[in-house]
Amino acid sequence: MSRKGGDHEQQPVRRMESPRSSHGQAIARILKTFRPEDFDLEEGFLLQTFTQMKGCGCKVPRPILLNLLKTFGATPSVANGGVGIGLDSCVVPLRHPGLKLVQTTDFFYPLVDDPYIMGRITAANVLSDLYAMGVSECDNMLMLLGVCKDFSDKQRDIVVREFIKGFKDTAAQAGTEVRGGQTVKCPWLLLGGVATSVVTDEEMLRVDRAVPGDVLILTKPLGGQVSVNSYEWLKTNDVRMREHHLDPKKVLRAAQQAMEQMCRLNKNAAIFARKYDAHACTDITGFGILGHADNLARAQKEKVRFVIDSLPIIEYMEEVARAMNGGNGFNLFGGTSAETSGGLLVVLPEDTAEEFRAELEKKESFPTFNIGRVIAAIEGEENGACMNHRIEVVPVPSSIHSSAIPINE
Amino acid sequence: MSRKGGDHEQQPVRRMESPRSSHGQAIARILKTFRPEDFDLEEGFLLQTFTQMKGCGCKVPRPILLNLLKTFGATPSVANGGVGIGLDSCVVPLRHPGLKLVQTTDFFYPLVDDPYIMGRITAANVLSDLYAMGVSECDNMLMLLGVCKDFSDKQRDIVVREFIKGFKDTAAQAGTEVRGGQTVKCPWLLLGGVATSVVTDEEMLRVDRAVPGDVLILTKPLGGQVSVNSYEWLKTNDVRMREHHLDPKKVLRAAQQAMEQMCRLNKNAAIFARKYDAHACTDITGFGILGHADNLARAQKEKVRFVIDSLPIIEYMEEVARAMNGGNGFNLFGGTSAETSGGLLVVLPEDTAEEFRAELEKKESFPTFNIGRVIAAIEGEENGACMNHRIEVVPVPSSIHSSAIPINE
Repeated sequence: MSRKGGDHEQQPVRRMESPRSSHGQAIARILKTFRPEDFDLEEGFLLQTFTQMKGCGCKVPRPILLNLLKTFGATPSVANGGVGIGLDSCVVPLRHPGLKLVQTTDFFYPLVDDPYIMGRITAANVLSDLYAMGVSECDNMLMLLGVCKDFSDKQRDIVVREFIKGFKDTAAQAGTEVRGGQTVKCPWLLLGGVATSVVTDEEMLRVDRAVPGDVLILTKPLGGQVSVNSYEWLKTNDVRMREHHLDPKKVLRAAQQAMEQMCRLNKNAAIFARKYDAHACTDITGFGILGHADNLARAQKEKVRFVIDSLPIIEYMEEVARAMNGGNGFNLFGGTSAETSGGLLVVLPEDTAEEFRAELEKKESFPTFNIGRVIAAIEGEENGACMNHRIEVVPVPSSIHSSAIPINE
Repeated sequence: MSRKGGDHEQQPVRRMESPRSSHGQAIARILKTFRPEDFDLEEGFLLQTFTQMKGCGCKVPRPILLNLLKTFGATPSVANGGVGIGLDSCVVPLRHPGLKLVQTTDFFYPLVDDPYIMGRITAANVLSDLYAMGVSECDNMLMLLGVCKDFSDKQRDIVVREFIKGFKDTAAQAGTEVRGGQTVKCPWLLLGGVATSVVTDEEMLRVDRAVPGDVLILTKPLGGQVSVNSYEWLKTNDVRMREHHLDPKKVLRAAQQAMEQMCRLNKNAAIFARKYDAHACTDITGFGILGHADNLARAQKEKVRFVIDSLPIIEYMEEVARAMNGGNGFNLFGGTSAETSGGLLVVLPEDTAEEFRAELEKKESFPTFNIGRVIAAIEGEENGACMNHRIEVVPVPSSIHSSAIPINE
């Protein structure tokens, strides 16, 4: 692996004050840091301990899942008027001419300490599957909730209230509403949702049109799994903090940076992906950048390979990952470290890619990343994605600690 | 409580042989009884033990749920062009004129031993929320699956395969398809789905028009919770079998009767509810007959009370419930014993009610029940449901053991 300078290195971006934005409120809450006592919960109450798995990292591993899904007699495919299992949303032609139903569901377990922020992340994460199809308007959301059976009545009431608030605030930010759901008791606190949209063909992207020469744009940096895990070690005074000589301040800062981007909607990215007629698009969640890039590459009509040349990573998470498991904690550098509510991976021709990046960065005041390219598959080679063996790691500093808050929406 | 003869007493209904029907296949599988060894699972493998809660009995209790949902700033309401949380499906007017999105989600834990039958029950249960709105066509289903982390790889592969098969078969029987979902690891085996339909106003019922004089028709008998619990005692050789002097043969027979009706779609009931322009409709699940009748009564425009006069109960389940907890096991006679994939409660004028019953019974070859009536609420009294203090208990014998299998669809 090498590291070099270049167009990936990011300067902190200056943002305008706009105190009423919904995302700005989320950032303010993140930076304040969550204190259970402020919510009438006992000191030391830690949401993440009500599960043994975190966020999208709880997914059944991809090879096992693909095998299990064989029962459906379907392989993952892009659903342009057809059937798609395993790639973001499913798309169903309706009985009503010209209209398609696009919908998705996701559920997982808590990965940060603040139930309100967890509600925002959960909603942003489920909506992201619509955005990955270029669908920017959601018609309805359902909320899925497994209330931890080990909660006291008081813990249950406070956690559920804050979670619902966060979920609802992000739904409102997305311009939709939560109009139903299901609540059961569960050993772990289980959080999720369903997002549905009814669209015309013009309101969604065809995401199977990548061609050699296209570039891969990622709209949020990686390292989410490293960040939420090291943050939990910090909160629980875990031995790994000392074992790996981790800097508590840097761990906290990275966790806040991760929380911000997990709360951030991929809606603008979807709007611009459609505006610039992206050739392909997906969002990065449990299978990591490589897993999702691979899924997307396999769904392309042309014989193509996606090559990932660089990994933009939340600042300090490279150091944490290098300190662990023989220098590759969570397989961060192998590309399969899980993200929750990660960015969109948008495939565009090289020239429009730069326009797309410029417009999205201007709108959101957060950096985007050119992480790779589309090449032609060699004769007989299957479609897929791979990592450049000389992959470049690009640390991405926090934007929310260094400049005015909050951002535009 | 009294018991008397009358129009509720059922004769076993004769049915035509029609070996290819999907529901007939389900019945044949139920009657064969599930043997883990036949599926390469170890003897004694029991699906229900991979949770501590069963089916719709895992719901957060209704008063607590209503309190938690206050965060949404919404009370349960019927959603005719508006917003509905807590009553079956939500209904969302779309941007496309004349169309509404109707959708619902449900998830719970295994309550029978056969994963295939569990898949069928799960799909029938989630679809039931559409049928409860008079919507008989489903446009898409998603599957929700929490794979028990304590499964061996082999157990996981077999259970998931059979579950998916059952879920898919019932979706096909309903005329729809499963086109997406989410799979995570979980301490308990978690099973669920999402059902969605896009409809015109003519394709759904307005379910808030009950008036005094209407009668309450129930399309499946009660006692599901008693039956699945006593069946588990039988399978695990639980001390309660001996303590309560339960008859193993009758327990098995009741469990099979319950499994059949949990697999049975409420689709025909929905079609006829719309045909006969039912004034109100809901399905009976976790809150029991009284809880759901109460929800529905509160959603009516007129000032009405729903009075439940009789409880049709799966044969032998009355005896089991009487043997327990001071003679009222699971509060069966109090009306709050949970059902999973229970029947529709259909509110109709008295004369059309009999036509509705006759046509549905002819179509399905299963009995229906006139269980109560709608009366005017007294001045100042809130809408709601109550039990007649001289409630009649009506045992309902199995139809699937006594005559030709399977039924029409």
